[in-house]
Amino acid sequence: MKEKVIPDIIVARLPIYLLALQHMMRDGRQVTSSQELGEKLGISSAQIRKDLSQFGEFGKQGTGYNIPYLADEIRKILKLDRIWDIVLVGAGDIGRAIAGYQGFYDRGFQVVMIFDNDFEKVGTALHSLVVQDVTYMGDIVRQAGIKVAMIAVPAAEAQHVAEQLVEAGVRAILNYAPIALHLPPEVRVENFDPLIHLQKMTYYL
Amino acid sequence: MKEKVIPDIIVARLPIYLLALQHMMRDGRQVTSSQELGEKLGISSAQIRKDLSQFGEFGKQGTGYNIPYLADEIRKILKLDRIWDIVLVGAGDIGRAIAGYQGFYDRGFQVVMIFDNDFEKVGTALHSLVVQDVTYMGDIVRQAGIKVAMIAVPAAEAQHVAEQLVEAGVRAILNYAPIALHLPPEVRVENFDPLIHLQKMTYYL
Repeated sequence: MKEKVIPDIIVARLPIYLLALQHMMRDGRQVTSSQELGEKLGISSAQIRKDLSQFGEFGKQGTGYNIPYLADEIRKILKLDRIWDIVLVGAGDIGRAIAGYQGFYDRGFQVVMIFDNDFEKVGTALHSLVVQDVTYMGDIVRQAGIKVAMIAVPAAEAQHVAEQLVEAGVRAILNYAPIALHLPPEVRVENFDPLIHLQKMTYYL
Repeated sequence: MKEKVIPDIIVARLPIYLLALQHMMRDGRQVTSSQELGEKLGISSAQIRKDLSQFGEFGKQGTGYNIPYLADEIRKILKLDRIWDIVLVGAGDIGRAIAGYQGFYDRGFQVVMIFDNDFEKVGTALHSLVVQDVTYMGDIVRQAGIKVAMIAVPAAEAQHVAEQLVEAGVRAILNYAPIALHLPPEVRVENFDPLIHLQKMTYYL
């Protein structure tokens, strides 16, 4: 299947297309076009057609894209036709916000365990999960076969936590700590950085 | 200065270049190249040169870019050679995490006021700020001349809050609520969506 290497930047646009399609589905829409998608997203229609053509033929010239079909196909490409378990590390303010976030399941994820190193937090409930002692994280994550983690610990602890997760088999990390993680190339890391988003906007002010 | 319209997608990459340059500066580095930047960021060196050339001449062929100089120039382009005041709406888990985040000032922003509609929260301290009653938000924001907001309220309230902010003069909104905001075109909106980041990675698992 994946003999052709698709540029990361194209893969990175697929979740954005998927979200737009899901919004259209919620509005009861059935068909869209690369033009409409492009206008919604600020991406040229040619770019959208080119991106999607990397993965197959999803629309017909002149009739556009069937929205539920294209959404399903993008889910399959992104391996979102299943639910991914997430380990969350850090039960502070950000961890609590993540644990309480309702939007994971519908989009392919669920937080199944939370760890912290603060003895006052370990054993307490955070929404529907009990905070576990980070000392035992490696074994528990490995046994559960979890591949996806979210790190919401202080910057000084993030690298160490990330290394433990990788050793336990985690291969995708969404990092909320304001620090760049240095990990083996087979591990995907996304940094969740509010400043990058803010800085994108001041240009226009 | 801004007669030429620069595509949004290019402007959106500048904060990422700036962050990479700042990391290099922290490591004591003085000079870099579009090749090195490209390898760090997973963007082609040709794209980086093309992006930067939209704004001027920042490097010399063969000698590369002076890091502090280029960082300063990008800050000027993005209007980050000043500190932007931010109004934060919502004093729940996400709001508390934002209020406690230490990384704003170094990157051009500071949260100067927080509003909530929960009477139990109004009047209490959130880190160094006192939560104010959202009823008075419009006047206070307008008088302070604040242009940048972060919205961390439940999805059902986000659109109404955003409209109030826009009426008070806000022109850039970082929205943490899991909902698409519909606002006039002169208002920039960035959605902070953890799922988009997670979905970018599962393709590779």
